[in-house]
Amino acid sequence: MSKKENIFVSLYRDAKNIQKKDPATRNILEVMLLYPGFHILVYHKVAHALYKLKFKFLARLISQIGRFFTGIEIHPGAQIGKRLFIDHGMGIVIGETAEVGDYCTIYHGVTLGGTGKDKNKRHPTVGNNVLIGAGTKVLGPINIGDNVKIGAGSVILKDIKDNVTVVGVPGKIVKINTAP
Amino acid sequence: MSKKENIFVSLYRDAKNIQKKDPATRNILEVMLLYPGFHILVYHKVAHALYKLKFKFLARLISQIGRFFTGIEIHPGAQIGKRLFIDHGMGIVIGETAEVGDYCTIYHGVTLGGTGKDKNKRHPTVGNNVLIGAGTKVLGPINIGDNVKIGAGSVILKDIKDNVTVVGVPGKIVKINTAP
Amino acid sequence: MSKKENIFVSLYRDAKNIQKKDPATRNILEVMLLYPGFHILVYHKVAHALYKLKFKFLARLISQIGRFFTGIEIHPGAQIGKRLFIDHGMGIVIGETAEVGDYCTIYHGVTLGGTGKDKNKRHPTVGNNVLIGAGTKVLGPINIGDNVKIGAGSVILKDIKDNVTVVGVPGKIVKINTAP
Repeated sequence: MSKKENIFVSLYRDAKNIQKKDPATRNILEVMLLYPGFHILVYHKVAHALYKLKFKFLARLISQIGRFFTGIEIHPGAQIGKRLFIDHGMGIVIGETAEVGDYCTIYHGVTLGGTGKDKNKRHPTVGNNVLIGAGTKVLGPINIGDNVKIGAGSVILKDIKDNVTVVGVPGKIVKINTAP
Repeated sequence: MSKKENIFVSLYRDAKNIQKKDPATRNILEVMLLYPGFHILVYHKVAHALYKLKFKFLARLISQIGRFFTGIEIHPGAQIGKRLFIDHGMGIVIGETAEVGDYCTIYHGVTLGGTGKDKNKRHPTVGNNVLIGAGTKVLGPINIGDNVKIGAGSVILKDIKDNVTVVGVPGKIVKINTAP
Repeated sequence: MSKKENIFVSLYRDAKNIQKKDPATRNILEVMLLYPGFHILVYHKVAHALYKLKFKFLARLISQIGRFFTGIEIHPGAQIGKRLFIDHGMGIVIGETAEVGDYCTIYHGVTLGGTGKDKNKRHPTVGNNVLIGAGTKVLGPINIGDNVKIGAGSVILKDIKDNVTVVGVPGKIVKINTAP
């Protein structure tokens, strides 16, 4: 997905990115201390590293502690790109085989989940620079293209190509995004 | 709903059932220690027993402690069948007069709630072997048949007969389920 | 919005109001001790007072502590009217520039949020005596009239006039409310 960064550099840049994107924030310390969407990135980076080292129970434990403190559940196996901005975050569920690209924004209540019909790869692959609105469910091993915007409260069960805006239950394309 | 089981036997079987159904789980200890969807069954069995003994304040207290630790709110009065599998669970609300059959699966964000128009029986009655997808709201004293599947993000305000798949806002039948 | 009340009088009346409106409650002590929808009003009144005094970091801290204990996130800047009844509450997000009138009812999973397109005033203004159903997203600096009812699972992106019932994704008027 992206070039490897030192974990502390990566987290610092994540916090900077959140500060830049959220109009309600004033400084990076506020992000680091008060943003559940930042805290869960810390938990997830540790859990994901343990998961790759096959310490799967410990990885799940850290993920569940993160869920308790933030209301956000990211399975340790999920592959999260650079600079994910999780806003508010309560109720987010990201499954074990989900992949999220770089510079994405995910709002509270979003699910990147399974449909129960698939084995192994069960969860979505999300491209770069994607925005997913509050409460939206993206289900199954589908592909969401780069620069896609998905409106709040949508349900997405099929692939979405690059550079489009999608809304509804089920999601339908409503706009071609010209400037990525 | 179902033959009476000793509470410990019941919880052990609940954990076994979760392990069997969740592809991300490895063993029953992991379920017992790390699954909010299992923990809330423990809280609810205690709260429901106290509720039936008319210790209603204590029952609510335990239910609210369970909500704090799991993000799942089941009113002590709700009647829950055998082997309920709650996956992820954050944001689930199950009302006082709701009834859930045996072998059901309920995802995070589901509401079995009221519409504000009814007295006494205000919440849904759900059959056996029903699956309710993430974020779906089932509202009012309606009946959901056996072997029903309800897609994620749906809103259900009317009775649903046995053996069908329903999706949408409001929910519409999209499939007859042949093998229950 | 409403005549100024002493904070303790206001909270007492808020609890009385919740007790009156919730058929599952028995007395005001139960509301004060066990209702997250009451607790968050306490947190918010303190956070909002600090916000107006420009102690913005402290205000956010109290708001985030409230989110941790209740699952409800109200930005300290949000202007909340008298007698708000938040039922269940998990997953609610109310943005910095949102305004909520008097005697409103808001269910769990509701968002009064932004669309990312606006500066300064970014969140909805909600009238008096409005009911917003579970999981509904109301987004952007729009106006929701008095005595409006919005069904569960709706997405609202445009102004709504007084005295109507709205449901769907996106929300459509389905009824004129005769008796406010």
